[in-house]
Amino acid sequence: MRGSDIREVLTRLRGDDAISFAGGMPDPALLPVEAMREAHAAILGDPRLAATALQYSATAGHEPLRHWIAGHMARLGVPCDLDNVVITAGAQQALDLLARLFIAPGRRVLVQVPTYLGAVQAFDAHEPVYEGPGQMALAYAVPDFANPTGETMPEAARGKLLDAARAADAPLIEDAAYQGLRFEGQPEPSCLSLDIRREGSIDHSRVIYCGSFSKVLAPGLRLGWICAARELVRKVVLAKQAADLHVPTLSQMVMHRVAERHHATQIARSVATYVRRRDAMLRALARHMPEGVVWTRPQGGMFVWVTLPSGMDVTELLAQALEAGVAFVPGRGFFTDGSGGNTLRLSYALPSESRIETGIARLGALVSRLATPRAALSAG
Amino acid sequence: MRGSDIREVLTRLRGDDAISFAGGMPDPALLPVEAMREAHAAILGDPRLAATALQYSATAGHEPLRHWIAGHMARLGVPCDLDNVVITAGAQQALDLLARLFIAPGRRVLVQVPTYLGAVQAFDAHEPVYEGPGQMALAYAVPDFANPTGETMPEAARGKLLDAARAADAPLIEDAAYQGLRFEGQPEPSCLSLDIRREGSIDHSRVIYCGSFSKVLAPGLRLGWICAARELVRKVVLAKQAADLHVPTLSQMVMHRVAERHHATQIARSVATYVRRRDAMLRALARHMPEGVVWTRPQGGMFVWVTLPSGMDVTELLAQALEAGVAFVPGRGFFTDGSGGNTLRLSYALPSESRIETGIARLGALVSRLATPRAALSAG
Repeated sequence: MRGSDIREVLTRLRGDDAISFAGGMPDPALLPVEAMREAHAAILGDPRLAATALQYSATAGHEPLRHWIAGHMARLGVPCDLDNVVITAGAQQALDLLARLFIAPGRRVLVQVPTYLGAVQAFDAHEPVYEGPGQMALAYAVPDFANPTGETMPEAARGKLLDAARAADAPLIEDAAYQGLRFEGQPEPSCLSLDIRREGSIDHSRVIYCGSFSKVLAPGLRLGWICAARELVRKVVLAKQAADLHVPTLSQMVMHRVAERHHATQIARSVATYVRRRDAMLRALARHMPEGVVWTRPQGGMFVWVTLPSGMDVTELLAQALEAGVAFVPGRGFFTDGSGGNTLRLSYALPSESRIETGIARLGALVSRLATPRAALSAG
Repeated sequence: MRGSDIREVLTRLRGDDAISFAGGMPDPALLPVEAMREAHAAILGDPRLAATALQYSATAGHEPLRHWIAGHMARLGVPCDLDNVVITAGAQQALDLLARLFIAPGRRVLVQVPTYLGAVQAFDAHEPVYEGPGQMALAYAVPDFANPTGETMPEAARGKLLDAARAADAPLIEDAAYQGLRFEGQPEPSCLSLDIRREGSIDHSRVIYCGSFSKVLAPGLRLGWICAARELVRKVVLAKQAADLHVPTLSQMVMHRVAERHHATQIARSVATYVRRRDAMLRALARHMPEGVVWTRPQGGMFVWVTLPSGMDVTELLAQALEAGVAFVPGRGFFTDGSGGNTLRLSYALPSESRIETGIARLGALVSRLATPRAALSAG
């Protein structure tokens, strides 16, 4: 489902105490407003820094921010340097630039099913196919706390995905937008770090890691990055120059200052809040959903993925839910094959724990009502 | 010449008192630093505004900024409303998104010769041709104070360009990046306003107006806009959603506040400075260039275009100029047909009047030395 479709859903949301599980955005109350205010004031209050911040700058990105990212990647088990990093306008632009470089009409793109629809939108501009024997243009995965399912690929599955990409001699795009938001358990190694172990260095890796500042620091600044082999990074920089010259200079300088001082604490703060909301949602689902409904148990990120009994379709449920003051995203939009009519994506990132309980109770009652006649029918 | 090539030129610039006529960027001393600081502080200092500023937002852009732009366009003789405006990451992204919508391999793109190379870069990703009888995908022009020539198209030429676009049933992209920077003379009507007179309304016009905040308010914020028929704007919004979701929310809120308060004074301030620098450059060229060298006399913008006697090539001149501490951009890069070897682009936007005199004196001496043997030879 496109962002514009989500907004359209939300305009149909009724009631003074409406509860949205629809958007995949961070809780604005968690964003580091004071740190952002301080960073903008410090940069714009210094005439020399201000002149740089408001001027054109290099396409690859603000060097101190690229340095910080290289250090961040090293802490994630990815030894790399400045030339392996390019700043993008969020992870979405990374996907768009990579689609331009790799996809030609009719070439095959390997994705998880269901998968992140923003990626499919970026890919579709170049008319790939998602099924069949065609030559593979690229593989794409969200290995950690995926949008929409919330699920995480175990290391063995990451290895198999790498094998498939290698067999097809195709790049593997690792969308790591949610990676930092782990609530519990051991982090899995990134596909990029696994491939570096295999290939010896990032410059020999086929994995293109797409990172984002949107989920813990500020979606509204539209800042993400690609970390990959320097030869690939060079190509991305050329494509980006034609696309929009560079990401805003001021935003990059601000993000460098904020990330350096607050990234770790922001991660901790977000995780502490979201884990409680996830728990509230899992408890509420267990309490209010009728038998036959199943859902994922994410170890991080923002989403729980709910599957209703097969044969049910969430279209009617959505209409009733919006009337009852609850919004969610129908799952079908995340499938490249048109299936998934009995699935829905719930985000626990925005509502409080008590609102989550209230919203899931409403939704559970509706699902029960819709499920019962069919169950009775099939039993009868 | 690409931005990266200009930077490469500048790394070869020698001397403690080096003078650059190369970059096409505004003088940072003219940028409204204090207004930007105030706007950021006001928005990030208000918890409600800050939460909006740091969050995801609509792809078409921040509504108050789109309203301001619609009013600005109306003052330029273009009656339009919110649905005719989409915010882009500078005019460069506008060109990139339009190239995606209109250009297919082998289709013809009509441009001025020479033309803005950033446009050619955006177009080239889709493999158009610039010559020959092929079906026209689009026409592109910088009618006011063009990059690189500084020249302005008279109304009659604009009409003919519109005729050509209409005959080919192709859109006409009007790149208005420098339009506000008029030093003298009557403003020419924009191609968009001319076409609205013909067609009755913006929604029936084939002209796609690309505006920019980069030349008078802040290039580093990367903010521009498209103003066009609402049906076209809708298509651009869809393409932009797949490209990068939206322009940074905070930048748009800041630009709205700054444009509302300071756009007119910033225009006046920039014009007052640049006109003096243009005059200094024209005086210096007249004083220091040998016979046979000609140049444009721009009524606005940032560029003077110099043509050396035919047969001369600026490659050697550039090497000597950089050694002598003067940088310019060779003109050949702005030609889609490989010609223009005897041309160069000079920007007067950055150096002071006295530095302009010094730099042109150095350049004039080098041109005289390079021109003389050839002249002697052809005379002999």
